[in-house]
Amino acid sequence: MKLTLRDLAEKLGCHLLGDSSISVTNVSSLQSATSESLVFVEDVQYLDAALSSSAAAVIVGEFAAGNFAASAKKPLLISPQPRLAFARAARRLRDPDRNRVIHPSAIVPASAELGKNVAIGARAILGEHVKVGDETTIGSGSVIGDNVAIGGHCRLDANVTIYPGTTLGDRVVAQAGAVLGSEGFGYVRDSQTGRYEQSPQIGRLIIEDDVEIGANSTIDRGALAETRIHRGAKIDNLVQIGHNVQIGENVVIASQTGISGSVTIEDNVVIGGQVGIGDHARVEAGAMLGGQCGILPKKVLRGKGVVFWGTPARPVREYLKELAFLSRSAKKER
Amino acid sequence: MKLTLRDLAEKLGCHLLGDSSISVTNVSSLQSATSESLVFVEDVQYLDAALSSSAAAVIVGEFAAGNFAASAKKPLLISPQPRLAFARAARRLRDPDRNRVIHPSAIVPASAELGKNVAIGARAILGEHVKVGDETTIGSGSVIGDNVAIGGHCRLDANVTIYPGTTLGDRVVAQAGAVLGSEGFGYVRDSQTGRYEQSPQIGRLIIEDDVEIGANSTIDRGALAETRIHRGAKIDNLVQIGHNVQIGENVVIASQTGISGSVTIEDNVVIGGQVGIGDHARVEAGAMLGGQCGILPKKVLRGKGVVFWGTPARPVREYLKELAFLSRSAKKER
Amino acid sequence: MKLTLRDLAEKLGCHLLGDSSISVTNVSSLQSATSESLVFVEDVQYLDAALSSSAAAVIVGEFAAGNFAASAKKPLLISPQPRLAFARAARRLRDPDRNRVIHPSAIVPASAELGKNVAIGARAILGEHVKVGDETTIGSGSVIGDNVAIGGHCRLDANVTIYPGTTLGDRVVAQAGAVLGSEGFGYVRDSQTGRYEQSPQIGRLIIEDDVEIGANSTIDRGALAETRIHRGAKIDNLVQIGHNVQIGENVVIASQTGISGSVTIEDNVVIGGQVGIGDHARVEAGAMLGGQCGILPKKVLRGKGVVFWGTPARPVREYLKELAFLSRSAKKER
Repeated sequence: MKLTLRDLAEKLGCHLLGDSSISVTNVSSLQSATSESLVFVEDVQYLDAALSSSAAAVIVGEFAAGNFAASAKKPLLISPQPRLAFARAARRLRDPDRNRVIHPSAIVPASAELGKNVAIGARAILGEHVKVGDETTIGSGSVIGDNVAIGGHCRLDANVTIYPGTTLGDRVVAQAGAVLGSEGFGYVRDSQTGRYEQSPQIGRLIIEDDVEIGANSTIDRGALAETRIHRGAKIDNLVQIGHNVQIGENVVIASQTGISGSVTIEDNVVIGGQVGIGDHARVEAGAMLGGQCGILPKKVLRGKGVVFWGTPARPVREYLKELAFLSRSAKKER
Repeated sequence: MKLTLRDLAEKLGCHLLGDSSISVTNVSSLQSATSESLVFVEDVQYLDAALSSSAAAVIVGEFAAGNFAASAKKPLLISPQPRLAFARAARRLRDPDRNRVIHPSAIVPASAELGKNVAIGARAILGEHVKVGDETTIGSGSVIGDNVAIGGHCRLDANVTIYPGTTLGDRVVAQAGAVLGSEGFGYVRDSQTGRYEQSPQIGRLIIEDDVEIGANSTIDRGALAETRIHRGAKIDNLVQIGHNVQIGENVVIASQTGISGSVTIEDNVVIGGQVGIGDHARVEAGAMLGGQCGILPKKVLRGKGVVFWGTPARPVREYLKELAFLSRSAKKER
Repeated sequence: MKLTLRDLAEKLGCHLLGDSSISVTNVSSLQSATSESLVFVEDVQYLDAALSSSAAAVIVGEFAAGNFAASAKKPLLISPQPRLAFARAARRLRDPDRNRVIHPSAIVPASAELGKNVAIGARAILGEHVKVGDETTIGSGSVIGDNVAIGGHCRLDANVTIYPGTTLGDRVVAQAGAVLGSEGFGYVRDSQTGRYEQSPQIGRLIIEDDVEIGANSTIDRGALAETRIHRGAKIDNLVQIGHNVQIGENVVIASQTGISGSVTIEDNVVIGGQVGIGDHARVEAGAMLGGQCGILPKKVLRGKGVVFWGTPARPVREYLKELAFLSRSAKKER
């Protein structure tokens, strides 16, 4: 999509210095910029490189607002959050889908309620009584169970599976292979025979607005109650979320982390990759969990802004002291 | 499904106190119970809450069999294993599939041998010479390779892949996205060129009765021999099981655990989440492996009922002492 | 496929001792060998067992080239790399696909450019302008995005997803459920609202020749630049590779390992299972990373042939000393 700098600056809330009639069609890195590219610089040390690049214009931080800007060789879009402005510019410049259709090979029962301008890929399968909001895209090969409700402006990629009864808010993204609403891992052992039988896994999964879920991640439905991913949570690839879990608003979860049943992650928690959280644990708002750390079942981690690391997880400062002590002591021995 | 308490008590082997003509249609938590719900209580401290809930009746432990029961406000179903009785009640009350058909869009070659009342979802694909037992369900979008044999009363959910030649027993469950019988990770390095070439991965995968496998888990076929999951094993989401592995009866494996090639897990072992087990290791019957622990290649872990933790895994008591020592020592330093 | 030993010996570059007119049809383990099987022995201690097995012939190391060979009861194929010769024999003996067709239910737009003898499974879906090289197989249910280029002799199994614009070289294998070219995990936080917005994930994924990728693994496209898997890398099941990552030639990555964004893994690195590597780290050529170890963001691991272990990863010798010190000290305490 082609936009003038004037247009972009207005939409992004940037202060524009330079020729506002110039147009751009894409965002890029400094290295791969062309004469239609918009680039960005957060740090003054890269500004020269940006100005010498082939880009048409540069989004910069407010550090560039002074005298410097007057002499700039390219138009500047000045923003208090240049990285954010760049992300938004990318979204503005993205070409609209050329082909928003319901592919004739998709299975869409008469009971489906589709909003406006819904796109459904080849061989996607909708169960009975599925609701799909305006402008939502369902990828090829995806399987949407009975009574699933999907909001507007969602994007489900290829080969996604959504179990019956699951609810998705607006602007939810699920990348390829994600499984939403599977049955949780709950068994009762028969003390007579030693065999396990499944506990009922008949609750629901509710995913709120603006949640994004990576490829091949799995989120289980509630056992009797619900699993809920609150608005704005971002979940990477190959993440596991168990039954009855509550994930707070704007929580970030990196790849391959596993969250056991009935865990509560409060708002704004940041979780690294390969973290493991035992059942019924609670991580309080604003905590940060370092990669590969492990939280014991029922544990409560307190402290906004505290970073935890290690297994069992402890405040990182403590853990680093332990590592340093261990290293020194082992070296001393011989 | 609607059942009278008399009927349920008989089927579950419970002792019924109260009006046996009352019917229930579902199981639920205390919070979400309606006048048609059956709830359960394992612990006497929750009995009052259950009796004050909206539920129609309560499954309780034998602690409730005495005088207390006489005064109960609701019918009681008394069981020596109330949680188990509840799980079984849930299964009894589950509505039968409304629609057990072979979807016209499924691909079922003439060489397939289907039992009675088999259900096959939209766009499922069966290879040549596939056998499917009575009452088995194959989910939409699943791909079943040539010469696969699936027992009776199995449930494969959507987008499952089963490689050619794999065998499944009766009552096997595989949730969405599971991959059964993939090629193992075995390579030979050419010492001349430094390149890797695949070792033959031409063995089989055999999954016995009552095994349940979570979403997006992967189980490799044998290299030359077989991979075997013995009866009753329960496997969570995103678990990896390598070639030639033997998983014993009633083994439980939590999410994101990885089991390398040629490992033997004996009967009744319980394995936490994110555990890693090196190739050719053996875990003896009844051991328990704490979350995130790691077992070295070729290691043998002995001891029924012993809990192991840490990497490399050691008896948990030992490991906790080490953690305590480390914590104290690091604090002492300053 | 049936081949004479004469034929095989020539193709494998083995020295043949014994009756060259004998034919074999398969490779097998010593235990399951039949009179048409070829087996192999790397270690002289198993030679007797091989010679007493039911196999037709034995691939052996050069240790067997002496007098011993003269008295052998079976033909011997002598190789300096017997395991490698066995792997190659397996490939030679594999039956050709009986049925290399484009299934009528596959969706192949007119804009596709297909090489010779391409096989496409049932319900596979190709986007617009997809290129597929000679002899490549695309599995049932796979979804190949617009503008994907796939080389010759590749094998994509069932339910694989390839995002638009991804490039695969020759002889690439992707097992079932693998997701190639998904969007990376990059967000910018709006400091005003606390909400995350996606950074542009518009780069590409390039997979070079001879790369093999396991079931349900996920590899993200570049953010602005590219993610590249260099030739000959072998990747196990459930592995995660983030945006902008560079994986060197002949790198081996075991199951459930996660590699964060912008990491560089140089040539010939060997990575165990469940390893976690933080963003922007670099692992230099020839290093080995033990299972479950963790590398911090931006860390550079040096040293060809050095083995690293633990989190944070350190040379294994150092780490083992620390473990030994800890164990001794904790025991001393009481």
